[in-house]
Amino acid sequence: MPRVEIRFAGFGGQGIGLLGRLMGEAIALYMEEKNAIMTQSYGPESRGGASSSDVVIDEGEIAYPKATHYDYLVVMSEEAYHKYIPNLKEGGTLFVEENLVILDDHAKKAGKILKIPATKIAEEIGSSLYANIAMLGFFCANTDIVSEDALKKVIREKVKARFVKNNLIAFEKGKNYKG
Amino acid sequence: MPRVEIRFAGFGGQGIGLLGRLMGEAIALYMEEKNAIMTQSYGPESRGGASSSDVVIDEGEIAYPKATHYDYLVVMSEEAYHKYIPNLKEGGTLFVEENLVILDDHAKKAGKILKIPATKIAEEIGSSLYANIAMLGFFCANTDIVSEDALKKVIREKVKARFVKNNLIAFEKGKNYKG
Repeated sequence: MPRVEIRFAGFGGQGIGLLGRLMGEAIALYMEEKNAIMTQSYGPESRGGASSSDVVIDEGEIAYPKATHYDYLVVMSEEAYHKYIPNLKEGGTLFVEENLVILDDHAKKAGKILKIPATKIAEEIGSSLYANIAMLGFFCANTDIVSEDALKKVIREKVKARFVKNNLIAFEKGKNYKG
Repeated sequence: MPRVEIRFAGFGGQGIGLLGRLMGEAIALYMEEKNAIMTQSYGPESRGGASSSDVVIDEGEIAYPKATHYDYLVVMSEEAYHKYIPNLKEGGTLFVEENLVILDDHAKKAGKILKIPATKIAEEIGSSLYANIAMLGFFCANTDIVSEDALKKVIREKVKARFVKNNLIAFEKGKNYKG
């Protein structure tokens, strides 16, 4: 597997940083011969309401740790979609929070577009806070990056205890969602 | 302030990633005109027991997010010291877990060396798990990167609830430690 670049993006409060961290930890635990780097940016941009985190995976040392041409772009907000769709690779995979993003012609470059009402699913469990993990379950089911078991294990380990149960439910619902 | 590079390093289980994350979040909250990027690496290296995380701060966009020539190097293990001391800038600041690291001639390049028995301090509170936050308090007291208030706020927000109280104690003890 050559270098793989994933960008997660949305707005502050959606737990975008956690997505990158869970992916990074899961890869660390279960992909024995891969390196991964997780990057999270903070600054005026993040205070302005936008949030993004990157995971870059490669077999050897990772010379440049930020994602610049995404194999996978996961957008949880309209702003994130417009900002980052230019850097999705031709033929790359686009994951979309379908009730928060309206696609335009730029999305045509995607080889695959996968849509999920992650926030609505999360609200049915009790809080929109779980939308990120519903998206993660959906991402897991539709890619071969990292196993379901690895992600569930890191959810149990890394998420605050009182949120674990509902996050695992959100993960399952996302995983089983058929767009 | 020009670009500032910080590397935290130690072994797995010391909560090195959390240090980077707390710094990044604190900067995001309280340094209005700065950008910051936090990077955490995973891979064979991290499974081998080593762990590191970087925070890079700059006024403008951060072109290269990994730390390569550290203004501040914080080492919590002997291995981390030997591995990363070559990349400390001449005149940079070296923070050391003094019971876990034996310095050698390479440390002479440091403009300042600050030592703290962070693990011992943490054990006095009840667990070596708090050593990272004792180090963070010590770092905070001896640098002008980010305020005490900002760091305490993110500790309250980001650390698991049952560990917050003791982590705040560890932070205070680190902050007040005189080497």
